[in-house]
Amino acid sequence: MRIALDAMGGDHAPEEIVHGAAQGLRYLSADDQLVLYGQADVVRAVLKSVGLNDARVVIEDCPQIVEMDESPRDVVRQKRDSSIFRMAVDAGERKVDAMISAGNTGAMAACCQLKVGPIEGCSRPGIACVLPTFHGPVIVCDVGANVAPKPHHLYEYARMTRVYGEVVLGMSDPAIGLVSIGEEAEKGNSLVKEARKLITNDPSLKFAGNLEGRDVFAGAAEICISDGFTGNVILKLTEGLAEGLFKTILGELAEEGADLSQRFKPIVDKIWRKHDFAEYGGAPLLGINSVVIICHGRSDRRAIGNAIRVAVEGVRAGINRAIAESLRATAPAGGAG
Amino acid sequence: MRIALDAMGGDHAPEEIVHGAAQGLRYLSADDQLVLYGQADVVRAVLKSVGLNDARVVIEDCPQIVEMDESPRDVVRQKRDSSIFRMAVDAGERKVDAMISAGNTGAMAACCQLKVGPIEGCSRPGIACVLPTFHGPVIVCDVGANVAPKPHHLYEYARMTRVYGEVVLGMSDPAIGLVSIGEEAEKGNSLVKEARKLITNDPSLKFAGNLEGRDVFAGAAEICISDGFTGNVILKLTEGLAEGLFKTILGELAEEGADLSQRFKPIVDKIWRKHDFAEYGGAPLLGINSVVIICHGRSDRRAIGNAIRVAVEGVRAGINRAIAESLRATAPAGGAG
Repeated sequence: MRIALDAMGGDHAPEEIVHGAAQGLRYLSADDQLVLYGQADVVRAVLKSVGLNDARVVIEDCPQIVEMDESPRDVVRQKRDSSIFRMAVDAGERKVDAMISAGNTGAMAACCQLKVGPIEGCSRPGIACVLPTFHGPVIVCDVGANVAPKPHHLYEYARMTRVYGEVVLGMSDPAIGLVSIGEEAEKGNSLVKEARKLITNDPSLKFAGNLEGRDVFAGAAEICISDGFTGNVILKLTEGLAEGLFKTILGELAEEGADLSQRFKPIVDKIWRKHDFAEYGGAPLLGINSVVIICHGRSDRRAIGNAIRVAVEGVRAGINRAIAESLRATAPAGGAG
Repeated sequence: MRIALDAMGGDHAPEEIVHGAAQGLRYLSADDQLVLYGQADVVRAVLKSVGLNDARVVIEDCPQIVEMDESPRDVVRQKRDSSIFRMAVDAGERKVDAMISAGNTGAMAACCQLKVGPIEGCSRPGIACVLPTFHGPVIVCDVGANVAPKPHHLYEYARMTRVYGEVVLGMSDPAIGLVSIGEEAEKGNSLVKEARKLITNDPSLKFAGNLEGRDVFAGAAEICISDGFTGNVILKLTEGLAEGLFKTILGELAEEGADLSQRFKPIVDKIWRKHDFAEYGGAPLLGINSVVIICHGRSDRRAIGNAIRVAVEGVRAGINRAIAESLRATAPAGGAG
C-alpha cells in the first residue's frame, strides 16, 4: 500500500505534517510506503529536523505551492506541479492507494474529479465529516464539496456514508437523518422533500427522519445528510460555538478565583479531548475512485497521524469496492443486500 | 396602542402566556390594551388562577385551536376562528398595532401574508432572531420564513434588519455579514454570490463580508443575513449544542465530586442567563405591515413578557415606517440616507 501525503498543505505545514507522518507510520506495514508530496529540499530539511528516518517514507518533488484561498480552477490549470495536483495524478494512475491533504479543499476536490474520477454510480462526491457529539460520533455528509446538490446526490450520500460508517467506523446499520427545518415530511426546501422520498423509498436504509439543527447533537441519528452549504455551516458553527463557550466559562471561572479555575481546567481538557475533531483525523471525500482524506486546515500532528490511520483503514477495508457495490444495488429493485 | 397576544400558542400555553402577559403589562401605558386571543372561558379561568385583574387586559374569543404541526395552508383555510388567524385579521384592519405568538410559526407567517400584507417595497418577510453571543447580541435574518429566497430578498433582509437593529436594539450602523462557506466573494452558492453583489453595491450598508459558520460567534458582524433554511439550522444547532455542552460539563463535574459541581452551578446559571434567548423575547417577522413577534415554542413567562416589551418598543419607535423609508431609498441611486 502507498499513501500519498501533502506535505505543503495546511496552516502548520510542513512541520506538523511531517510530525504527523512520523506518528502515522505505526499504522503502516513493513512493505507499505508513505509518500510525502512537496518541495523536496524543504521536506528533506524538515524530515531531518524532526529526526524522521524511515525507509518507508519517500519524497515526491513538487515545486509548486497551492495557497489556501486559490481558486480550484486556477490550480487545475496552472498548478500541475503542485503536491495536490500530482497526488491526484498518481492516484488516478493507481500509483498510490490513498491521498491526504490539509490544504485547499476545493482544489483537492477539483483535482480528484479531474484526474481520479468518480466511483461508478456516483454522480457527485461528498465530504463526510465525523462530529464528536455527546452521544458518540455523528457523520455529516456533505460538508462542502457540493453546495448545490440534486436530490439524488443526497440519496447517494446516504448510501455512501452508510458504507463508510459500517466499514471504517464500525457502525452497525446506522440510523440516517436528513438535515431540515422541521420533522414533518412537508417541511424544508424542495431539495429535502425530494431527497426524503428517495431515501424512504429504499428499504435498505434505516431512515431516522428529518433532523432539525438541535437534533444533530441529540443522538437521533448516527448519519446526517445535508447539502454542502448547510453542512459546512454546521461544521464550522459547531467549532466556533464550542470554542467560544469554553472560553466564556474559563473567563467566568477566572473571575471567581484562581483555585476554581484550576480545578476546572482538567475537566475542560477532558471534554475537549473527547470531542476533538483531531481524533477523527480528517474527512473522506466519498465517491472518488481512490481513498481521499481531507484534513482541517488547522490540523496538528495528531490529526495528521489519525488521518493516516483512517486512510490505511479505508484502503484495507476496501471501502470504495463496498461503495461501488452499494451504488450498483439500486433502491427499489434490489435493495443494498 | 393595542397589542394582540396569542393565549393558546406555544408548549406552555395558556398558563405561561398569561403569566407572561402579567409580566409584560409594565411596558404598557395606562390607555394601552393587551388583547388575549383564545378560547374565552379557558383564558378567563387562567386569568383568575394567575390573579391577573387589570382593566387593560381584554379577551377576544377565538374558539379554534391551531396545532404546532398543522400545515399553514390548512390553518388559512379551516381555522379562521383561531387566535392566529383572528389576530392577523385585526392587525390588517388596524384594530391592533402588534401581534405576538409562541404558536405555529408557519401559520403565523401565512396568516400575516394573507390578512396583513407586506410593507411597501418588501418582496418577502423574514424572521430576525437575536442570538446572544460572547461578543454581544447578533441578529440572524432569516431563520425560517423563506427557505428558498432570491438574492434581492437577502438584500432586503439586510436593509430591514439594519433598521430593526438601530431602531429597536439601539445598534449604531451595525456591520452586516452574509452567511456563506468561505470568506472570498467567489465562494458559496449562487444565491450568496448574487446577494453579495447587491449588498456591496449599496454604500449605505456597512458590509462585513461573508461569514463562515464559526464567524457568527466571533463578533465579526452584528447582523448575519442568511437564507431561511440555513438560518433555521444555525438557530437550532446553537440551542442544541449549548444545552448539550452544559449538560456534559455538569455530568463531568458530578463525577469529580459534589462540591465542585455545586460551586460551578451558579456560574453555569450566570452564563445561561446572559445567553438566554428568553431575554430577547421573540423574533420580529420583518416586512409585514404590522409589528409581528414570533416567540419560541418553549417560551416561558419571562420570554412572553419580553416579547411584549419588544412589540411595544417596535410600535413606539415606528419600526415599520422606518423600514418602508429604508426600502424606498433604493440602493445605487439614493443610498439609505
